[in-house]
Amino acid sequence: MTNTLKIGIAGLGNVGTGLIARLQEQEKLRLSGQIEITGVSARNRSRARPVSIDEYSWYDDPVALAEAEETEVFVELMGGSDGPAKLAVEAALKLSKPVVTANKALIAEYGETLAQIADKSQTPLLFEAAVAGGIPIVRAVRESFSGTQIRSIKGILNGTCNYLLTEMMESGRSYDDVLADAQRLGYAEADPFLDVSGTDAAHKIAILSSLGFAVPMDFSRVKIGGVDTISLKDLELAGKLDHKIKLIAEARQTQDGVICRVEPVLLPKTSPLAQIDGPLNAVQIETEHAGNYTLTGPGAGSHPTASAVLGDLSVLLSGQNKAVLGMKVGDLNNPFCDQAQMSTAQSKYLIRVDLLDKAGALASLTEELAKSDVSVEALLQDSAGTSESAPVAIMTHNCSLAAAEEAVKHVNSLEAVLHPARLIRIETN
Amino acid sequence: MTNTLKIGIAGLGNVGTGLIARLQEQEKLRLSGQIEITGVSARNRSRARPVSIDEYSWYDDPVALAEAEETEVFVELMGGSDGPAKLAVEAALKLSKPVVTANKALIAEYGETLAQIADKSQTPLLFEAAVAGGIPIVRAVRESFSGTQIRSIKGILNGTCNYLLTEMMESGRSYDDVLADAQRLGYAEADPFLDVSGTDAAHKIAILSSLGFAVPMDFSRVKIGGVDTISLKDLELAGKLDHKIKLIAEARQTQDGVICRVEPVLLPKTSPLAQIDGPLNAVQIETEHAGNYTLTGPGAGSHPTASAVLGDLSVLLSGQNKAVLGMKVGDLNNPFCDQAQMSTAQSKYLIRVDLLDKAGALASLTEELAKSDVSVEALLQDSAGTSESAPVAIMTHNCSLAAAEEAVKHVNSLEAVLHPARLIRIETN
Repeated sequence: MTNTLKIGIAGLGNVGTGLIARLQEQEKLRLSGQIEITGVSARNRSRARPVSIDEYSWYDDPVALAEAEETEVFVELMGGSDGPAKLAVEAALKLSKPVVTANKALIAEYGETLAQIADKSQTPLLFEAAVAGGIPIVRAVRESFSGTQIRSIKGILNGTCNYLLTEMMESGRSYDDVLADAQRLGYAEADPFLDVSGTDAAHKIAILSSLGFAVPMDFSRVKIGGVDTISLKDLELAGKLDHKIKLIAEARQTQDGVICRVEPVLLPKTSPLAQIDGPLNAVQIETEHAGNYTLTGPGAGSHPTASAVLGDLSVLLSGQNKAVLGMKVGDLNNPFCDQAQMSTAQSKYLIRVDLLDKAGALASLTEELAKSDVSVEALLQDSAGTSESAPVAIMTHNCSLAAAEEAVKHVNSLEAVLHPARLIRIETN
Repeated sequence: MTNTLKIGIAGLGNVGTGLIARLQEQEKLRLSGQIEITGVSARNRSRARPVSIDEYSWYDDPVALAEAEETEVFVELMGGSDGPAKLAVEAALKLSKPVVTANKALIAEYGETLAQIADKSQTPLLFEAAVAGGIPIVRAVRESFSGTQIRSIKGILNGTCNYLLTEMMESGRSYDDVLADAQRLGYAEADPFLDVSGTDAAHKIAILSSLGFAVPMDFSRVKIGGVDTISLKDLELAGKLDHKIKLIAEARQTQDGVICRVEPVLLPKTSPLAQIDGPLNAVQIETEHAGNYTLTGPGAGSHPTASAVLGDLSVLLSGQNKAVLGMKVGDLNNPFCDQAQMSTAQSKYLIRVDLLDKAGALASLTEELAKSDVSVEALLQDSAGTSESAPVAIMTHNCSLAAAEEAVKHVNSLEAVLHPARLIRIETN
């Protein structure tokens, strides 16, 4: 008997279609049951989409989808804090149907109202996808760190702004130039206001504040500044002072209460957040007793956001009864590689030998490597100094472990090699 | 009516006493109920401890604590895969009592047996603290990414080894020297075998493999190498090749199955994991469609590990019925700072002005700053070039926002200032 969750999806943009693509091959995921899409809703039924929606019931009205008898869980991916998204989420919650949403504006602006409806009937309303795309920061703050006193939550929560700042600095071009390019490439919206004004990041930090500091979910209390005020000159001067400018969203417990703000700030170039470039997001959690944590990853985009929605759906699917190891022990049947398979995997290797400092030693060494089909990418010979031997380091091109081990065996048989050679794998990223 | 969880804690070492310290002031946490310690157990009752345990029932035998009627949830912090820890956890699970444990050896070696007992009666067995201390990686892999196809999980999962490698490279001392120091300072155990042999990291990656790839929890399938084979010469040669050596635990899906291994490898200095130095832990999750994620933080120690235990307890406390915002809306009563309070917070600022390139301009500028009690840490004047004005950047010492804004107002009133000055906050980390 398989546990099944019947979901209705409202909103078939990037995230909605990304979610459908993953669910159409869900046997590849580690879900402890079946997620069945029963109905979908969007503004335009006939628009070309990267996935087929033919087998799902179509609803013109997302409220009707939320209320439909076949919809057990309502997935809201429309966006917009007012209007249909809010109406449909309310409709689902009022019928005690769990809701999963990626809508940061909705949660930041109406989170308390919605939570009151949901909590009354103990109906889950999950919104991992609303903050920082696929980074599991909502679950981390709401659950993992709920027994931990948090000092501050600080992050780069808007990839568009971070991309603009990175690109300005790297290309030496003006804000307007870089923004126009980003819009052309689809990295920024046609109307970029929500992103560049700091509003989008403010929605996200309002949500994290409430979860992390038990302040009310009150978007009006977030102090907001955007990157639209930052000039190339600002970035350049900051650079000369060994700083970078980043749009930082921050919530911080002080003696007087919680400060919650989004603004461009200068960060020392060596600080962890200063090193987050391009469209990435990163969140730092500073705790009172348990140290500091950083979570980094793609903070937006179709698949990262769908990943967060899928995590929430997976939790609803298994609920309290999730198996200890995620799946039943009998279902853990993905095989391990055996030794033979592992030794055929390609990798680069470091081979280190202490070589007698005499003529021809190096030549005989490289000859032995060639015999085993191991080719050399780089070779480093340390000066022998006062001793009679010199360490030689060889970085190989990709080869199998078997070949590398064979090469080491040959090398060890050389007279000029004083101690058994060392073999260490090299990771390329 | 407050939800209460009565817990028994077996093991009163660093983690156990850290947990008790936090629970003794749990009003500071964001728990959705009350956690009551009813009983404790350890080897030695009278040993001096940083917290008082007088008000808790004492049990000589952890199994008796697990079975005691007053124990609703059993917290196992003894360590050791065999012996009392295993017996006590089994005893609790057989009575359908939820278990929270920090014991990586127990889960890696007997996880399937224990999961079978627990799953039969749908009893939670939670072990966030078993992997990477306070980093919420178990919950991330088990829940957040359970709807996401994972390509690899790769990380620095043993802080002791990472500390040894970092310290060898930075101080240019031998493995034996640095290890002896680390033992003296308490960074390494008297018997360092579990750490330096790679066994501890192997326990952790075995756990993450099972959760992330649905392979059996089979510790015997992990290929294990340690840092005890790494010499200073290896590190130095790697450095000359622009690489660092790190002990990397890795689980990777291949066409043939899952590779699971711990070994010292060379990483390019620019790779994210190469930049994790000292006792920190870091885990990278590479996904098939949703990009790559990195989680970083303290991977061991009393309070980080206790933080993970508290997260698990908090989940048990609220279960399915956790309020949407973590706490009931009416309980979200931590105040925000008001504007007046925020403007007294101390920070450094960047003040940027376009200054007319004429005699005395700079002097009048610094005079205005002094009037507002804003002192200058650094001042940078760009060459004016062909234009009549030059940008001047001033980095202030710590001052209140109010003072900085006052200073900008004065500066703007100067004749030599062409455009309103820009004020940007500077974060110091």
